[in-house]
Amino acid sequence: MTGIRRSRDVPELVTRAREGDPRAVARLVSLVEDGDEVLPQVAAALAPFAGDAHVIGLTGSPGVGKSTTTNELVRIFRKQQKRVGVLAVDPSSPFTGGAILGDRVRMQDHATDPGVYIRSMSSRGHLGGLSAATPQAVRVLDGAGCDPVVVETVGVGQAEVEIAGLADTTLVLLAPGMGDSIQAAKAGVLEIADIFVVNKADRDGADATYRDIQGMIGLGERAPGQWRPKVLRAVAARAEGVEEIVAAITEHREHLQDTGELRKRRERRAAAEIEAIALGTLRARMEALRDGAVLADLARQVADGDLDPHTAAGELVTMTEAPNGR
Amino acid sequence: MTGIRRSRDVPELVTRAREGDPRAVARLVSLVEDGDEVLPQVAAALAPFAGDAHVIGLTGSPGVGKSTTTNELVRIFRKQQKRVGVLAVDPSSPFTGGAILGDRVRMQDHATDPGVYIRSMSSRGHLGGLSAATPQAVRVLDGAGCDPVVVETVGVGQAEVEIAGLADTTLVLLAPGMGDSIQAAKAGVLEIADIFVVNKADRDGADATYRDIQGMIGLGERAPGQWRPKVLRAVAARAEGVEEIVAAITEHREHLQDTGELRKRRERRAAAEIEAIALGTLRARMEALRDGAVLADLARQVADGDLDPHTAAGELVTMTEAPNGR
Repeated sequence: MTGIRRSRDVPELVTRAREGDPRAVARLVSLVEDGDEVLPQVAAALAPFAGDAHVIGLTGSPGVGKSTTTNELVRIFRKQQKRVGVLAVDPSSPFTGGAILGDRVRMQDHATDPGVYIRSMSSRGHLGGLSAATPQAVRVLDGAGCDPVVVETVGVGQAEVEIAGLADTTLVLLAPGMGDSIQAAKAGVLEIADIFVVNKADRDGADATYRDIQGMIGLGERAPGQWRPKVLRAVAARAEGVEEIVAAITEHREHLQDTGELRKRRERRAAAEIEAIALGTLRARMEALRDGAVLADLARQVADGDLDPHTAAGELVTMTEAPNGR
Repeated sequence: MTGIRRSRDVPELVTRAREGDPRAVARLVSLVEDGDEVLPQVAAALAPFAGDAHVIGLTGSPGVGKSTTTNELVRIFRKQQKRVGVLAVDPSSPFTGGAILGDRVRMQDHATDPGVYIRSMSSRGHLGGLSAATPQAVRVLDGAGCDPVVVETVGVGQAEVEIAGLADTTLVLLAPGMGDSIQAAKAGVLEIADIFVVNKADRDGADATYRDIQGMIGLGERAPGQWRPKVLRAVAARAEGVEEIVAAITEHREHLQDTGELRKRRERRAAAEIEAIALGTLRARMEALRDGAVLADLARQVADGDLDPHTAAGELVTMTEAPNGR
């Protein structure tokens, strides 16, 4: 992979991505994932074209059938002649930059379809996790003409919440008998899900899970006109109930448009993205101060108990603002 | 909860916490969790006393028996006359500030033991998740004389990695037949675990899980003298294999001390904590610029496609550094 490290190559790369060249899309996502120095140019070149795609977040615990469900959703979107982007974000692989279940084995049904772009990403322990690289990767797929863009991530944890900040429509997948009811009971999941899918609905306990979720949604307070989360049943492995999921996604998007909430969500998303990039810049500056010696010195003093971390942080902020000792 | 909002009350509060007053400890943890403005005073008052506790991270998927195992570990540490702190961090509850399974139902065995301080925390969607509030809460328990401090968190995701950054010794719990092998296979978990515990080892598939983990550890490269992760079996619900976990924790701590790695980990931890606080300060400044109007304006332009997020972030950083238009 050489030859596209220079900023003057970026506009051509974006043009090729917009024409549907999967290698150009792949290269752009890699630049985002690597935090390449040409990222500002990439972002600038994409800005006029990005921002229209419907971003669908899909999350759930390991084993609930996320990949299978995504695969089925893609199939239906393709029948609707849509160009689909899929980002499978794996926040548990911060070190190696990739999941063992990589691109090749995921969603093989669509591996050769030029109308589908599938990519696995790791969040690589970035501060802010998903919030740093994923929105920019979504922007690449969006700018390349993918609509919808599906962002799939393993649930439980911070990632789940971040996906909701990123998505227009958030799907939370559950499966019977996996302790998901208790997990879902935690307010976080209830507040992020626009659509619940009880997958593997042919298994024992599916009705109980369905009722649990319905019950909890019933308890929540909702302003007039506010979206009431839908609860659906599916057996994605047999393609059952998947058309209904797509219908619910469409209905939710129309609701967002009609109420002006879509615009609000996108502004919130943009604000979070701007902030994440700004903090990344500042963080890099902190770590670069005297080639890292400033932070290391402060850390040593804190570890010794000679300095508290707040005072140390204050010194670090001051030095970041005046890196040349102004 | 009134009367301790003023910074002049902080030293007294720290004194009371060090004397073992659980209400003082609780109040300090609340101040940390709320990001109270007296936090710098709290940190300064704790600095001379904190830094000695052995911090044990315990993570794993929902249902592997984390609370039960923590409960058993606490029982053994208490037999050893140790004062124990437990922080149960729930990163899936960012909105409400608390899990449904709160302090009261967790680890009831020790609810009335004054030598055990147990607290649930949510990470509340803080940027950086655990990295912002949890280290400061650990510092409170440490400063209050708890040693060890056990930090328990739901696995899979960013939280898992962050716990490793926070802990001296990281335990990863697995259970047979939960798809954990595949999860564990992801490099992230392998690299963070100092000790693997196959819990529910009386169940079918325990041997396979045990062998899978052993096999994967065998594949990893290790420098001479580097710790080889231990793999243990336990049935925490019947208190089986738990003494062995404590012995392995002790052995790991001795290894860290002998090799100088303990000091390195603590400096790394301090660096991460300093950086998280510094970034929190800068973030608050960004959000406060013209009462939030600056970020909102930039977000609107990005949502419109008139500006790209990198350029917007650059403007935000510049304005944060010169908030008065210098």
